[in-house]
Amino acid sequence: MKNFNFYNPTRILFGKNSIADLKDQVPDDAKVMILYGGGSAERTGVLDQVRSALAGRTVLEFGGIEPNPRFATAMKAVEMIREKEITFLLAVGGGSVIDATKFIAAAAKYDGDTWEILTSRGSVIKQALPFGTVLTLPATGSEMNSGGVITNPEKGAKLPFNSVYCYPIFSVLDPEVTYTLPTRQIANGVVDAFVHTIEQYLTYPAAAYVQDGFAESLLRTLIDLGPKALETPENYDIRANLMWTATMALNGLIGAGVPQDWASHMIGHEITALNDTDHARTLAVVLPSLMNDQRGPKREKLLQYASNVWGIHEGSDDVRIDAVIDATCGFFEQMGIKTRLGDYGIDAHDIDHIVTALQDHGMTALGENKAIAPDDARRILEAAL
Amino acid sequence: MKNFNFYNPTRILFGKNSIADLKDQVPDDAKVMILYGGGSAERTGVLDQVRSALAGRTVLEFGGIEPNPRFATAMKAVEMIREKEITFLLAVGGGSVIDATKFIAAAAKYDGDTWEILTSRGSVIKQALPFGTVLTLPATGSEMNSGGVITNPEKGAKLPFNSVYCYPIFSVLDPEVTYTLPTRQIANGVVDAFVHTIEQYLTYPAAAYVQDGFAESLLRTLIDLGPKALETPENYDIRANLMWTATMALNGLIGAGVPQDWASHMIGHEITALNDTDHARTLAVVLPSLMNDQRGPKREKLLQYASNVWGIHEGSDDVRIDAVIDATCGFFEQMGIKTRLGDYGIDAHDIDHIVTALQDHGMTALGENKAIAPDDARRILEAAL
Repeated sequence: MKNFNFYNPTRILFGKNSIADLKDQVPDDAKVMILYGGGSAERTGVLDQVRSALAGRTVLEFGGIEPNPRFATAMKAVEMIREKEITFLLAVGGGSVIDATKFIAAAAKYDGDTWEILTSRGSVIKQALPFGTVLTLPATGSEMNSGGVITNPEKGAKLPFNSVYCYPIFSVLDPEVTYTLPTRQIANGVVDAFVHTIEQYLTYPAAAYVQDGFAESLLRTLIDLGPKALETPENYDIRANLMWTATMALNGLIGAGVPQDWASHMIGHEITALNDTDHARTLAVVLPSLMNDQRGPKREKLLQYASNVWGIHEGSDDVRIDAVIDATCGFFEQMGIKTRLGDYGIDAHDIDHIVTALQDHGMTALGENKAIAPDDARRILEAAL
Repeated sequence: MKNFNFYNPTRILFGKNSIADLKDQVPDDAKVMILYGGGSAERTGVLDQVRSALAGRTVLEFGGIEPNPRFATAMKAVEMIREKEITFLLAVGGGSVIDATKFIAAAAKYDGDTWEILTSRGSVIKQALPFGTVLTLPATGSEMNSGGVITNPEKGAKLPFNSVYCYPIFSVLDPEVTYTLPTRQIANGVVDAFVHTIEQYLTYPAAAYVQDGFAESLLRTLIDLGPKALETPENYDIRANLMWTATMALNGLIGAGVPQDWASHMIGHEITALNDTDHARTLAVVLPSLMNDQRGPKREKLLQYASNVWGIHEGSDDVRIDAVIDATCGFFEQMGIKTRLGDYGIDAHDIDHIVTALQDHGMTALGENKAIAPDDARRILEAAL
């Protein structure tokens, strides 16, 4: 096991009707801003539940945070916060709204040019407004970690940031609010959580048996429950376990003390930048091809994954690795998510563009061994056509 | 899954040479009291490592905290803290030293009669001195939770307390400091962590697949590594995984959203009170007999435990339950821990005393269903003679 420093102070309020518990978590004298995205929080009644829970407090609302949230939108919120002297933020939404709220919380307390928060990857953050979240979409894990991603189309930039000041004070996870999500979003969320787990697990052996066991358990849960969640959207136990799995997949716990990969994410980001393919779908394309390409360095963990997650025990090493890659693709397809670049309108010519973008963004030494260079990424992409 | 509220803000500094990292965790201007137990912290060099890490700071030391730490000892520390205006506590030891430090941290900031902290089970605590820990014995999980137990022989009382103000700010876990522990303490620690996990897992099905998967993974790790830890005391990976497992077994995570039992602990406490049998050994006696006795209400989880932890799939329900109880006893015996009351000099006459003590302490409705009455406890104990 590698040395590690684990810290996660976010309180989780989990379960049926838990939105009402907000009233005990937001300070009585707070001036609150509720931040949300498009119309779904209103349509599904989640916003009304939040408003009821905060009845009697001073509350402003700020809607319209986009998927891949924009710097300019966030700065509008910051302006309003400063003008109205808001003291507490409440994100109501999925990963985009929560990521934006983290940035806004830090930017509202930042004296300099707030763009520096992103160029410094968050290291300039020394304080942030306190904030909580009400999660509506299980996927990114943003509800229990301290990172986010903000997009600035004018600068052609999509930049991550992270700061110890950006943990939510609390996050409310009511699985019932996911009943009405579109199939596509549930499928994306399951695959996103799956690949988050894989990025922290499928590397090289580090004798971290606790973390491996937890990761394998999350993967088995997603494989078992993902397809069932599509079939029976209003099954509480399925939605509850998916929601908690997605949170546990990226709250720092399974990643503590182990090597991490994240190459599929970095390559996938450039595909999204190219033609706006859903993030989870880019992962479903890149990961299987990367597993196949990296079967040398990842051999031991691929065999462990085959055995402990999929029960694949028969055949030579390569036969078992072939089988587990097939099984992984099969799972993504079962979730209604295609696994070839061609399925998303990307052809051989586009690969040049993607590889150049990786180089432009400094992504020239990816993976747990920092050994995936642009040429390797090209080969992985070509095999995924 | 049941609704839950999960919160754990303790920072974990894990790994080789991590004691040196103390210097960044204790405030520069703190007046520190180091609290420890007997001579082992001195003998093993752990105290010297701590002193080096805190070089340049104002540091006082308070040694002599007993196993089953005493109220009177804790109050001597409180007196010195008030007199010397100590601002930060650092526990160096196992569960007893850490439990005592939690109580001392709260008592030093309590205006009334500090005994009320225990009679209220901690509910009167409204503040505590900040404190960290350096763990030397993996077992109780106290390094990453907010509870403790204090004994007062004059009042014939051993009382638990819990408070959100009693989380360590940080805990340092260096697996290398466990190399020199006596075999008996390692064995006790493994069995203690095992039964902590079982108490939160072996109840009735609650559709908490994430928590079940994590618990099963911890149990498999203990079964695999426990005996190896006795054979090869200086194997870093084994000690590291045992240490992290024991922490994860009682930091609130696997217990969030599930029913909990704790009957084996409550019955075991009275055995320790009777003749000072090691805590873990009382659990190794009571748990197998309780599993056998409660095979009705626990049937589904016993079969899940047999299958997922021990790979027992053959035979009727009762055959598999018999087999998994045998396997559990076999594991305890393999750790050098006997599983019958007679092994600890307890006979049929003593059972009356134990059952009366349970009644006197209000332990009349134990277990996840609050259905284990004193007569049931008597039957469980008689079957363990």
